[in-house]
Amino acid sequence: MKRVILSVNAGSSSVKVSVYSTTKGKEPTQIAELQVSGLTAPPPTLDYSRGSKTIIKRREVKDNIDGQDDAFNLLLKTLTDDDELSEISSKDDINVVCHRIVHGGDFTHHEVISPDTYNSLEALNDLAPLHNAKGLEIVKSCMRLLPRATNVASFDSQFHATIPEHIRTYPINQDIARSNKLRKYGFHGISYAFIVRSVANFLGKSVDETNIIALHLGSGASACAIKGGKSWDTTMGLTPLAGLPGATRSGSVDPSLVFHYASDVGKLSPASTKELHISRAEEILNKESGWKALTGTTNFAAIAAASTESDNGGEAKKEQWAKYKLAFDLFADRVSGFVGHYYVTLRGQVDALVFAGGIGERSARLRTAVIEQAGCLGFGIDPTRNEDPASSPGASAVVQDISAFDARHRVLVCNTDEQFEMARACALDEGLW
Amino acid sequence: MKRVILSVNAGSSSVKVSVYSTTKGKEPTQIAELQVSGLTAPPPTLDYSRGSKTIIKRREVKDNIDGQDDAFNLLLKTLTDDDELSEISSKDDINVVCHRIVHGGDFTHHEVISPDTYNSLEALNDLAPLHNAKGLEIVKSCMRLLPRATNVASFDSQFHATIPEHIRTYPINQDIARSNKLRKYGFHGISYAFIVRSVANFLGKSVDETNIIALHLGSGASACAIKGGKSWDTTMGLTPLAGLPGATRSGSVDPSLVFHYASDVGKLSPASTKELHISRAEEILNKESGWKALTGTTNFAAIAAASTESDNGGEAKKEQWAKYKLAFDLFADRVSGFVGHYYVTLRGQVDALVFAGGIGERSARLRTAVIEQAGCLGFGIDPTRNEDPASSPGASAVVQDISAFDARHRVLVCNTDEQFEMARACALDEGLW
Repeated sequence: MKRVILSVNAGSSSVKVSVYSTTKGKEPTQIAELQVSGLTAPPPTLDYSRGSKTIIKRREVKDNIDGQDDAFNLLLKTLTDDDELSEISSKDDINVVCHRIVHGGDFTHHEVISPDTYNSLEALNDLAPLHNAKGLEIVKSCMRLLPRATNVASFDSQFHATIPEHIRTYPINQDIARSNKLRKYGFHGISYAFIVRSVANFLGKSVDETNIIALHLGSGASACAIKGGKSWDTTMGLTPLAGLPGATRSGSVDPSLVFHYASDVGKLSPASTKELHISRAEEILNKESGWKALTGTTNFAAIAAASTESDNGGEAKKEQWAKYKLAFDLFADRVSGFVGHYYVTLRGQVDALVFAGGIGERSARLRTAVIEQAGCLGFGIDPTRNEDPASSPGASAVVQDISAFDARHRVLVCNTDEQFEMARACALDEGLW
Repeated sequence: MKRVILSVNAGSSSVKVSVYSTTKGKEPTQIAELQVSGLTAPPPTLDYSRGSKTIIKRREVKDNIDGQDDAFNLLLKTLTDDDELSEISSKDDINVVCHRIVHGGDFTHHEVISPDTYNSLEALNDLAPLHNAKGLEIVKSCMRLLPRATNVASFDSQFHATIPEHIRTYPINQDIARSNKLRKYGFHGISYAFIVRSVANFLGKSVDETNIIALHLGSGASACAIKGGKSWDTTMGLTPLAGLPGATRSGSVDPSLVFHYASDVGKLSPASTKELHISRAEEILNKESGWKALTGTTNFAAIAAASTESDNGGEAKKEQWAKYKLAFDLFADRVSGFVGHYYVTLRGQVDALVFAGGIGERSARLRTAVIEQAGCLGFGIDPTRNEDPASSPGASAVVQDISAFDARHRVLVCNTDEQFEMARACALDEGLW
């Protein structure tokens, strides 16, 4: 029996849907992908591809799109209206919708969303009001618009349920820690699950014998020490704020810093609602920091490109380049630091250092800078392979080996795919068939 | 010409004074040491030793001791009343008093305290209200009680003035960072200056060729990457809160954690005064966390001792041991992580990993746990030397080599001495003669 699975990823201003076809016990095959972007900066635009074919490219949406509900409706209509997409002729052809939810609290596995679990998902908003709200909105839309589909929540935190107690514990009052659920959760776990499985496969090892240091570096960035296929430590914490900086996120800073940044940071931000309480502090550190604050841009490719330019472009350009260089060097330093940290955490038993995520996969310059520092641990890259990982000998579409031939440990690039990972987990979950 | 220098270290509930005799351009010699303890838990007690001789041991003080002024007066009287201390027959024999001040802002060197600099020291209270206040109180006492002495401020942060921009910068709005002076400062620098000089001397290298990873582990704990004798990175940040946990300090936690810990953490703590603003958050993370919060005790020796005990002492004991083990493992993990981080920071060019501070010098078990993890970097310890560093071959009173004979990098123990370091810097400062 064929099934259609949708993987839904709701960002702060976009909704992305990947469509998969699968049969019981088999890995899913992607048949379409579509996205509405610019929800918070109208007019929104629509992209749609079927297989490898681009059908719609950045089409301005004329209809009034008011929030996730409208956006998801538009995506559904695009799918059902496409006569050449034989798998979906009506909404009822969609069997499973899996949703990426950032904070899963104590959930260690994806969850079918019933009215009961929906309430427990809403309770998680207290822990991550900035991160879970959009994902939940779309869950609600789906429950209404696709009453016959099974909705599943895949959590970014679930992969990290294996982090041992002495690492996940914060040294704070433990009664309060327990009652307020304060511990390291970790995120990007859907990506890490994809990465470790793909890398194990590439290396010809079983997942539970695979030790890697994985770097998911995108506009949100984190690192993970994976021991025997399981998360042992990761840089994000109670929320995605801790650890590495990101496009608009400070990462770890002195916890007292924000109290010196502005007065009344404990007060609620105007973005708060009756249900969702967001402090000004969290807004500052999550939304108004990171390399955007250092450079004015969230485009890391531009930062990396300019960071090594010679400064012969006049004063204004010089100043801009200095900012780019600072942001680049700062990021490379923080990433390299965690490579060292996790090398020790894994006691040097490391099969590979793996770069993934938009920056990890695309920035040869960032990889060079990290390996330049972490070279002392026995990592080395081949400059040619690094510039074009896809051309590396033995490269698959998913994993490429860019190691120097004489390096003690491997360096890999992994094209991570969270949408696929969610769909795969649902396809292989017998309970859903 | 002989001079008498006092090194003063004002803690939250104690005042410690070391007395040195010196001649121009020479290293000082300690001639006496005394301390009033228990200021916040009366009755206070007095300790006094002259040379290697204990004169007063834990004598309860009958007089009413109300704050730092009274405490310092008692210490002065003890010194001037001791006929056998020939160097000090009256208060006027004291030439220089150097004060340990935690946060020195942009100061890169010790400073003679004039009425002008005193004001700029007071301004630093904004950055570190929890840490500078006691030190400044005693400065005020000294200026009043010893009008003929030169008062000098030695800052815990000054050693870290060399940290490069991309490491000291927080990725936050840089206009606010500049105006509010928000950056990594680092602390324990008086200790690190002592450590790197002593280790260079022990290794027969010049200081500016010496690269070490130094661990100052006490009830406040930090690590420092020292490159060419200079601080390159350290774990503490804008304030001493960041980095490693301590006796009552959380160390780095998700910066949003405290907003989930209690409501109104941005409000002023009752400990605030009109001049000094301390948020509840800073109080919670600095004073109500750390291993005290995990175990109930601030005594790390007890924690380390119990952490490996077998659990055959009944339920209550079992539970206590589990807490101790958690605190010990947590601390060892965080320390080892920074060893890995700084190994990469120094690109593997490390002359030695150095343990110092009360825990670093005394806890063989902690050293074992750290080296067990960091062994993959080429550090190794000899178990016998580790148990009794003073008996190691070639051991000096200050530095002992506990390395395994076949290890790639050395592991040293350094008995750090901040009081001496401050006095030495004053003795060698020609401007003060």
